[in-house]
Amino acid sequence: MSENLLSHIDTPKDLRQLQEAQLPAVAKELRDFIIDIVATKEGHLGASLGVVELTIALHYVFNTPQDLLVWDVGHQAYGHKILTGRRAIFHTNRQLGGISGFPKRDESDYDTFGVGHSSTAISAALGMAIASNLKGETDKQHIAVVGDASIASGMAFEGLNHAGVTDANLLVILNDNAIGIDPSVGALKNYLTAVKEGKNPRENNMIRSLNFDYSGPIDGHDLPALIRELKRLKNIRGPKFLHIITTKGKGLRQAEEDQVTYHAPGKFDKITGEIPFKSEDHMPPKFQDVFGLTVLDLAQKNKKIIGITPAMPSGSSLKYMMEALPDRAFDVGIAEQHAVTLSAGMATQGMIVYCNIYSTFLQRAYDQVIHDVALQNLPVIFCLDRAGLVGEDGATHHGVFDIAYLRCIPNMILFSPRNEIALRNILYTAQTGLEHPIAIRYPRGRGTIIDWQQPYEKIEIGKASLLKEGSRTAVLSHGPIGMNVTLAFDQMEGTEAFAHYDFSFVKPLDIPLLHSIFTTFKNIVTIEDGTVIGGFGSAIVEFANEHNYRIPVKVLGIPDTFIEHGTVAELQHSSKIDVKNLINIFSLL
Amino acid sequence: MSENLLSHIDTPKDLRQLQEAQLPAVAKELRDFIIDIVATKEGHLGASLGVVELTIALHYVFNTPQDLLVWDVGHQAYGHKILTGRRAIFHTNRQLGGISGFPKRDESDYDTFGVGHSSTAISAALGMAIASNLKGETDKQHIAVVGDASIASGMAFEGLNHAGVTDANLLVILNDNAIGIDPSVGALKNYLTAVKEGKNPRENNMIRSLNFDYSGPIDGHDLPALIRELKRLKNIRGPKFLHIITTKGKGLRQAEEDQVTYHAPGKFDKITGEIPFKSEDHMPPKFQDVFGLTVLDLAQKNKKIIGITPAMPSGSSLKYMMEALPDRAFDVGIAEQHAVTLSAGMATQGMIVYCNIYSTFLQRAYDQVIHDVALQNLPVIFCLDRAGLVGEDGATHHGVFDIAYLRCIPNMILFSPRNEIALRNILYTAQTGLEHPIAIRYPRGRGTIIDWQQPYEKIEIGKASLLKEGSRTAVLSHGPIGMNVTLAFDQMEGTEAFAHYDFSFVKPLDIPLLHSIFTTFKNIVTIEDGTVIGGFGSAIVEFANEHNYRIPVKVLGIPDTFIEHGTVAELQHSSKIDVKNLINIFSLL
Repeated sequence: MSENLLSHIDTPKDLRQLQEAQLPAVAKELRDFIIDIVATKEGHLGASLGVVELTIALHYVFNTPQDLLVWDVGHQAYGHKILTGRRAIFHTNRQLGGISGFPKRDESDYDTFGVGHSSTAISAALGMAIASNLKGETDKQHIAVVGDASIASGMAFEGLNHAGVTDANLLVILNDNAIGIDPSVGALKNYLTAVKEGKNPRENNMIRSLNFDYSGPIDGHDLPALIRELKRLKNIRGPKFLHIITTKGKGLRQAEEDQVTYHAPGKFDKITGEIPFKSEDHMPPKFQDVFGLTVLDLAQKNKKIIGITPAMPSGSSLKYMMEALPDRAFDVGIAEQHAVTLSAGMATQGMIVYCNIYSTFLQRAYDQVIHDVALQNLPVIFCLDRAGLVGEDGATHHGVFDIAYLRCIPNMILFSPRNEIALRNILYTAQTGLEHPIAIRYPRGRGTIIDWQQPYEKIEIGKASLLKEGSRTAVLSHGPIGMNVTLAFDQMEGTEAFAHYDFSFVKPLDIPLLHSIFTTFKNIVTIEDGTVIGGFGSAIVEFANEHNYRIPVKVLGIPDTFIEHGTVAELQHSSKIDVKNLINIFSLL
Repeated sequence: MSENLLSHIDTPKDLRQLQEAQLPAVAKELRDFIIDIVATKEGHLGASLGVVELTIALHYVFNTPQDLLVWDVGHQAYGHKILTGRRAIFHTNRQLGGISGFPKRDESDYDTFGVGHSSTAISAALGMAIASNLKGETDKQHIAVVGDASIASGMAFEGLNHAGVTDANLLVILNDNAIGIDPSVGALKNYLTAVKEGKNPRENNMIRSLNFDYSGPIDGHDLPALIRELKRLKNIRGPKFLHIITTKGKGLRQAEEDQVTYHAPGKFDKITGEIPFKSEDHMPPKFQDVFGLTVLDLAQKNKKIIGITPAMPSGSSLKYMMEALPDRAFDVGIAEQHAVTLSAGMATQGMIVYCNIYSTFLQRAYDQVIHDVALQNLPVIFCLDRAGLVGEDGATHHGVFDIAYLRCIPNMILFSPRNEIALRNILYTAQTGLEHPIAIRYPRGRGTIIDWQQPYEKIEIGKASLLKEGSRTAVLSHGPIGMNVTLAFDQMEGTEAFAHYDFSFVKPLDIPLLHSIFTTFKNIVTIEDGTVIGGFGSAIVEFANEHNYRIPVKVLGIPDTFIEHGTVAELQHSSKIDVKNLINIFSLL
């Protein structure tokens, strides 16, 4: 019975004991296993379903973990995890204390390189391959599996450009399914499509121009073809490139048909594939939708407004503007560097650009923020989605460094709204003629206010506000984590002593108010969903030191360690910025 | 007389009054003018000499500044500056208060975009072109001039990939001279060389694959050919790409023959081209040579050592290792992102990688430092050359943010040597089995110690040291700026009150010593050559706050503003961290 194959595969060695003819059955079981678990435990679905055959073929042909396999981005590596000793714990995927949703070196020898952000695999695998050459391990194979959205990112090009002039034993496999999280874009994508459709002769090949031994395109769901080609490539030295065509979501009809939704669908019916309907009628909005709908509304009233996203139209909700105003809303692909400097170029011509980038991905464009935007003091509006703790995506994706890395940049305004209305109003304010760049950081997920579409109000730049009066201790919160402070006070008794201020602006700080606070209160607490080193609390401590205030400042935030995956609530708890910890901390003051 | 043409060109309008036949004479005058001034005032030479004809042709054919011209990197824009109203002040180039060595928006309407770091021009010009389309300015031309070293950087690819699917009126001119600062590298360079040599038919063109209208290659010193082609391209809509071949240093024999030296040769004889011999016998070494020679020495003793530079073999002095151990020292081109993740990949295989990147350019690989190195706690050794104030290159190039942007990253060790011996010893220490990544930041230029090649000594990680005893005030310096403290004390009287500590490590801090300092002294001064926001001083202030010390800490460093160009001494003075200011500040304590 074929149903029993997977349960006997504890490592790829077991897989390699099988006959080639048995592998399609393994593929079926593996696909069912992924669907079974992800249907109830949630996670990334479509990408892993698309590479089931590739995953099996790679571990069948290559001698992993001696041969080194790097999965770009890594959310397609569920099959890989299941075949490499983690079948029994796969149900803990993305949970606190469970396995990571991405390959992770700590977790397994088969996870050769930690991934999460895109386009790193070629560079990493090339580094491994060069190292193997130097160590005389000339038979060792090094394989990078890269999607077509990811390979269009500049970093991937840098890796190819270098690899092409080495004799490294590197195999780059392009997993071409014409989609990242959203459909792929750009000239390279069009070129690859033409290649697939046979419109380009083999001679006319960009990849060959970079000195790779190119083969393909082949059907990435055809196991015998994959195995034959991988075996052939195994015996060719130097940089090689295999182009395979796959279908994201392969094997689950709805996932194939609605690839964007089924990228990470949440819970779904494993038999029918259907996602249960959840009414959102009485729920607060996602911050993402506050962004997307507000920017669309503003753009409809102001022709100078432009929206930009690097490959996250759905995730960021810029899709609303892209649908309604396609001439002025751009998905530039996984190209954060380009997105920022493109925004700067537009800003020189008087356009008002909302450049939406996840906080963790703005790390990819840090130089462009400094050199192309802030140095020229161009009023680009950075919308930093998924700032703070992001939850189950874990260490690779938390947006906890942004306050520290942006606060040191001259000319920058740095703001985090405490709720949806504040986000809406700062988006409004940002297009009223700010003379500086501004970064607006807001979290993943839902806020707290159902009735958020209030009339616009302009926010005064650099102004903090009093949320609750108090006599002894001033709590200064930055951004939506302030809600935890409010909830803590709601559950405490005798909170007359505690004042609560919303410091949405980390830069510029509300200096007059700070002087008043430091001359009024006995002690100060700061709280933020960013790293305590160099963040908002540091800014307050710097202020206190500069002005010779001697009041103790308790700085709460993300400690100096990488935070793993778990729910946001769990991670807030471990960072001691959840409601329960706040109550304890406040009680001691 | 042709000698008089240039003196009558105050703006490109004057240039456009001339007959085409007069332009070669303008080219000769312009070249002589550049050579004349740079020979005595110093600056970048070769790049500007190489584009004299292109500069003239562009301003002749296009209606600048209405048509928007972006010079990538910008150190080739001297001719552009001279033809656009800055001939009379060109002798102030790169001097304090004078014009910038790079295009700068504040300086002239003809400088459409501030440049300095490479590979930004395509994105910026595309942003302008899209803005023009939206504004209905459909006749407007947008031109990005990009070198062949720069176009191989990932960011340039991202720009091309996006531009190819737009109808933007963008002309990308590839100025192909096969050299950046050092000779260009990589597979794309080899491809372009093949194109130049006629080995690739026009059909087989990477640029066409990205949906650009490609023309060339043509001789970039042939003014009639350039003008003819630019006029033709002016009438073609959409993304266009012109490939021109030039010679860096064109018109000065030595500059053509020794392109690396004449990139920025310092003073030279404008007639003979010769650079006066300067004996270095009794001079302290450049920190760069301390790096280059020490890493070579270590690598000769340890086979696991690898050196990596993104396009700066000469500037970083990694060239010594590249010459002696070419298998283990790599110039990966202008590809900082790749350089870092390549290093991480090598580190997973047990290699000891010295990844040398200028501080300002590590901003380009910030995400890779966090996501690929620090998160995996891989012991990559980052050598941050040109940290702190760099002098005449100015605002685009100062390495003043690194302490703030690296200090917030978990697992990082952050060190700045106070002198050459400390640099040598930390380079030695770094290969003795550190279990974390380390960033070693050191300045541009010469140190103070002639006899620096002492026996290696291992440095204890996180240990600060006492340089001078004192009773009342503790001065804590980070890195070579500590020398200013020493010099200040040498010139002061009654310095018994002042202790001086070298805090080479910003992370980890020497916590026991800090407790001792904070319980011993009446006040503290910190000094660093980095931004005061989030930097070393902040770390000390955070420590003091955390442990409830109430002693005032005076934080000296780079203020929260972009620092322009000038000598390092001048810029230290304006930042109040020069010897004279220190004496004043210390005298008041």
